Amino acid sequence: MQMNPDKDTRLCISLSGRPGNFGLRFHNHLYEQLGLNFYYKAFSSKDLAGAVTGIRALGIRGCGVSMPFKEACIALVDELDASAQAIASINTIVNTDGHLKAYNTDYIAIAQLLRNHKVAQETTFALRGSGGMAKAVASALRDGGYRNGLIVARNEATGAGLAKNLGYAWQPELGASRPQMLINTTPVGMTGGAEANDLAFEEDAIAQAEIVFDVVAIPAETPLIVSGRAQGKRVITGLEVIAIQALEQFVLYTGVRPTPEQFKAAVAFARS
Amino acid sequence: MQMNPDKDTRLCISLSGRPGNFGLRFHNHLYEQLGLNFYYKAFSSKDLAGAVTGIRALGIRGCGVSMPFKEACIALVDELDASAQAIASINTIVNTDGHLKAYNTDYIAIAQLLRNHKVAQETTFALRGSGGMAKAVASALRDGGYRNGLIVARNEATGAGLAKNLGYAWQPELGASRPQMLINTTPVGMTGGAEANDLAFEEDAIAQAEIVFDVVAIPAETPLIVSGRAQGKRVITGLEVIAIQALEQFVLYTGVRPTPEQFKAAVAFARS
Repeated sequence: MQMNPDKDTRLCISLSGRPGNFGLRFHNHLYEQLGLNFYYKAFSSKDLAGAVTGIRALGIRGCGVSMPFKEACIALVDELDASAQAIASINTIVNTDGHLKAYNTDYIAIAQLLRNHKVAQETTFALRGSGGMAKAVASALRDGGYRNGLIVARNEATGAGLAKNLGYAWQPELGASRPQMLINTTPVGMTGGAEANDLAFEEDAIAQAEIVFDVVAIPAETPLIVSGRAQGKRVITGLEVIAIQALEQFVLYTGVRPTPEQFKAAVAFARS
Repeated sequence: MQMNPDKDTRLCISLSGRPGNFGLRFHNHLYEQLGLNFYYKAFSSKDLAGAVTGIRALGIRGCGVSMPFKEACIALVDELDASAQAIASINTIVNTDGHLKAYNTDYIAIAQLLRNHKVAQETTFALRGSGGMAKAVASALRDGGYRNGLIVARNEATGAGLAKNLGYAWQPELGASRPQMLINTTPVGMTGGAEANDLAFEEDAIAQAEIVFDVVAIPAETPLIVSGRAQGKRVITGLEVIAIQALEQFVLYTGVRPTPEQFKAAVAFARS
């Protein structure tokens, strides 16, 4: 945070069912490092519409939106950025003089990570899940030219629907498929969840894959990532996703892009 | 402010037409000194109802309410403390698990100041003004047993109404009256106002008074206070009012009462 708050200090917040510390530490650290007169506060809420009303009435500059609000929030904003429009799932609201524009910086982060990790377009992949994060990841893959995809989701309505929208195949289970890239977008492996100790894909599928990608960020080393590393696979972690998506939020809120070194230091601080 | 914000940090705010720095510096300094995990942020708003909806939805712990919201806010809360009920003017909202209780810590501060300054009950006084602050001051006087009062206000509806409610006389101008205590509750003498350089009472009335009391806090040394001091009168300043009312807000929000030394240091910091 900025160390000398005054009447001109601007507030950014997050809204989620279960707030964590990563975002607020990341943003506040960068505000301090860059001398920006901002403060970041994490909120939980049971009243999404009331919270968005408060964002407008109080002139809160930006808001990160997490589970379970990513889809319900769409009806409450004034404009959708392209990153949010196709997915119908948002994770960021920018308030400019009362006009609320929503973005999906998860989508932006996934697209960046596929480029950074030089994942070839012809890579076959299976993506497990059909929620808001699944839509962001699958859309980034489709828009990145990845055509050989399989959505794995027990929920046929959302799973087959997502696959159909994007031109991918759908199966309720992975079955005998052995794609080159395995992507988990479900809470499997997440600290505190019912399946915290479970693998999002079976051992044999991991053994036959080349790349393992988990969007679960807490812990960064999920059972899936641990298994992938142990088998010498290329891994992309959820920590990379939340760090890049937080960086893009920071740029949207403040108009300032930190240097790579400042970004790296903020991620290290936020995890400490 | 607390120096290491985390997901459990609680937020208190102020709502006013023109936010200042005193309150946020006062509260944040005491949070830091006392190691309380709170942060204080000043907001302006044009949408009072939306702001109060946001207070509920986001679980904001406390809210200071200034001009022009002190009366309109009453319809938006769940319960009025005795300090606010009689006056029908509030300056403080405390949010306990979604239940909003409103107080008037101006009233509490005025009552304390009359005791601290040992103002005798039989003192005759004239109070200029008929707005929210006038009601708080006049009610504290009435409840403190001060019976010889005159309300001076050009607005007959509010001025005569206030006087009648509390058993005081009313006049549109001070005229030939020469009471022992002169009290200003109007914006006359306030920095940035249209009458910033004006005296709230004429020189002759000040010369014949014993006590001069101004609720205008910015500047602390209003023309009225400067004139009173120059003529050797006892003075009570608006700085004393905002400091004590802020202290009482702090106690309501946090449940912690700072020591007199901590209070004094916080006032000095807030003014610096």
